[in-house]
Amino acid sequence: MSNYSAQQSSISENNRSRILQYLYHNGICSRAQIAKAVGLTPAAITKITAKLLAQNIIEETGDMEGDKNRRSIGLNLNCGKYHVIGLKFARSLVQIGLFDLKCNRISLTDLPTVSEENINETVKQIHNTIRHLIAKDEKIVAVGMAVPGPYLIEEGHTALVSSMQGWRKVNFIKEFSEAFDVPVFVEQDARAGALAQFLFNPELSEGSLAYYLLGEGIGLGIIDNGTIYYGAHGTATEIGHISVDVNGKPCDCGNYGCLERYCSANAIHEMLNKQPYIVPGCETMTHAQACAALFAKNAAGDEATAELTSEIARYIGYGAVNIINAFNPTHIVLGDIVSQAGQPLLDEVKQVVRERTIPEVSCNTEITLSTLPTDATVTGAAAVAITNFLEHPSMFFDVA
Amino acid sequence: MSNYSAQQSSISENNRSRILQYLYHNGICSRAQIAKAVGLTPAAITKITAKLLAQNIIEETGDMEGDKNRRSIGLNLNCGKYHVIGLKFARSLVQIGLFDLKCNRISLTDLPTVSEENINETVKQIHNTIRHLIAKDEKIVAVGMAVPGPYLIEEGHTALVSSMQGWRKVNFIKEFSEAFDVPVFVEQDARAGALAQFLFNPELSEGSLAYYLLGEGIGLGIIDNGTIYYGAHGTATEIGHISVDVNGKPCDCGNYGCLERYCSANAIHEMLNKQPYIVPGCETMTHAQACAALFAKNAAGDEATAELTSEIARYIGYGAVNIINAFNPTHIVLGDIVSQAGQPLLDEVKQVVRERTIPEVSCNTEITLSTLPTDATVTGAAAVAITNFLEHPSMFFDVA
Repeated sequence: MSNYSAQQSSISENNRSRILQYLYHNGICSRAQIAKAVGLTPAAITKITAKLLAQNIIEETGDMEGDKNRRSIGLNLNCGKYHVIGLKFARSLVQIGLFDLKCNRISLTDLPTVSEENINETVKQIHNTIRHLIAKDEKIVAVGMAVPGPYLIEEGHTALVSSMQGWRKVNFIKEFSEAFDVPVFVEQDARAGALAQFLFNPELSEGSLAYYLLGEGIGLGIIDNGTIYYGAHGTATEIGHISVDVNGKPCDCGNYGCLERYCSANAIHEMLNKQPYIVPGCETMTHAQACAALFAKNAAGDEATAELTSEIARYIGYGAVNIINAFNPTHIVLGDIVSQAGQPLLDEVKQVVRERTIPEVSCNTEITLSTLPTDATVTGAAAVAITNFLEHPSMFFDVA
Repeated sequence: MSNYSAQQSSISENNRSRILQYLYHNGICSRAQIAKAVGLTPAAITKITAKLLAQNIIEETGDMEGDKNRRSIGLNLNCGKYHVIGLKFARSLVQIGLFDLKCNRISLTDLPTVSEENINETVKQIHNTIRHLIAKDEKIVAVGMAVPGPYLIEEGHTALVSSMQGWRKVNFIKEFSEAFDVPVFVEQDARAGALAQFLFNPELSEGSLAYYLLGEGIGLGIIDNGTIYYGAHGTATEIGHISVDVNGKPCDCGNYGCLERYCSANAIHEMLNKQPYIVPGCETMTHAQACAALFAKNAAGDEATAELTSEIARYIGYGAVNIINAFNPTHIVLGDIVSQAGQPLLDEVKQVVRERTIPEVSCNTEITLSTLPTDATVTGAAAVAITNFLEHPSMFFDVA
């Protein structure tokens, strides 16, 4: 294909995608409304929607009230007609969810807790579970996977998984990209989480969005004016490895004082194991269970937990200050395991931000707790699949 | 203007701009070469270049060898026909340079050292100097200004200028935007420096570029795949206020352990004043002079300076580690006053990066010293004017 015709073809795909995205975000619309919103001529809209109708990707919904009281026919994206699979890899947690295009969850499977020893077994279980889901449900059009960062996009694997290095050896692209009858898309977990916030929470889609993942690792996904920030090779926005103390605790990445050494679920569990009187029995719990037990005791007013939970929150606040200075986002959304500490955590994070930033700068950033379900990353994995479906329709349908 | 016709008009401006940028970066080209490179039809190129020729923005240079031995006429951007003014505001330094479009410097004026007391006087001198330059030289088409960050784009002023808060009160947009007969463009200083590297060093224009400004403040400008990173309101990439030690030295911004408290020219001068045996007489020097004297003694093998210069370099290295984890750039270019420490500084920064990053991540980032003149920021201010000239030609000429 020549440069010129390639460009024309990418313009067509881009127009098709903008129409699908507009219908996705706005529900039933007339052709005239779409033309106005995406800045194309009515003739172009008629031509493109005819092809989408022929493929049954969109449908006509009958008469609706148009501009100036003219009647017009509504168009609607067939969101219920398609399903996607979202798969979350954390360190010890693997979850596989089945969703429709509006991210309503149809089913969720938790695989057994992963350890260094059973990573290969886990990979086999993933293959089997996804194959089984696809065999049973012909509506499934794509698989999205959310993996820990720093994820090297071109190479297909994570450069470092602190405290569980075995995951480094799994090449997600080689292992899964051709494994199923539907396309597979891999994304760093916090970016997947940011996509979920962006798709399913319209209030967060304006400006610059930061999803601050507080899970087994600490991650960050930035969507700046609609564009995900990757850097040169996909390893940008690694807030968990930005040091808060260059003379602090050593990290597997080679750095000292990495944020995730102070406030990830793993770091919190490590601290609890050293002071087992705070959460008795914590050594036999998963990281998520140990954190949940700590936050429950703190919420019940237990004094022994107050200092530790406040210190954890302050470190999360130091990370938020770094996010503001580095990325100047409109929104910071706190999500995943540690965000379950809830309002007391949010209050302390906001307090640290008030103390440690220039008011004129930080007044432009709103900090909130995620309103998506706890497993926001598995929702994020589904969001990765849905985003690709909306952005690259020609991968899924014959639209020529 | 309706949404549709506004979009068409912005497409025309975009095509015009892409042609000018292509000619700027590639020198004399045929219409066919431009058409191929920017992906427009030959007819569109002929139409757009006819208007640019009529305005004398570009010129025909006579026959050149074309594809398949066909003769064609060369086109060239009239770079020598236009001049721009670049103005650098640091804390105590204000420099005004006159340049042609290829950033050849025609003249440079240093204003007297600025203190909190004479900021108003300095602003008057800036008005007079620029008016005088424009009156004498009708080739001048634009003024670019580089100001310290965090610069609030919409509001037109800097939110904080640590150690010289008086600059905060100057509203650059109100003060200068309508002050002269030519358009004025204001940019955060490190972004201006990044634009200069991007325009004048073709090797740095691919991938993601980080310009790491080591001057009276510590700043960062990121150009990621051709796009400057601003965040929501222009205060992103404030590396100087990212803490390297949350329990460290207090900073005017409210944070503790901000990078610029350890390795800016001001911080170095402060350290030298406390140990005046290292650089005798430093207390009467400017910040830049004190740093230059320190680096000269160190280069001459003076042992008393070795520990201090190495510590400064290590902090600059910690900042580079943060830049890699936050922005995953292809290039980090060290520039401004402190980069004058040269090769020993660069070696130590690279050593810190080797020690404190994941090799698979940092191997993708090349770290170099700026090869532009010392006053890379005044060159950067000119680059801001030139970039706007190339991106928004209709602001400068009647192109309809």
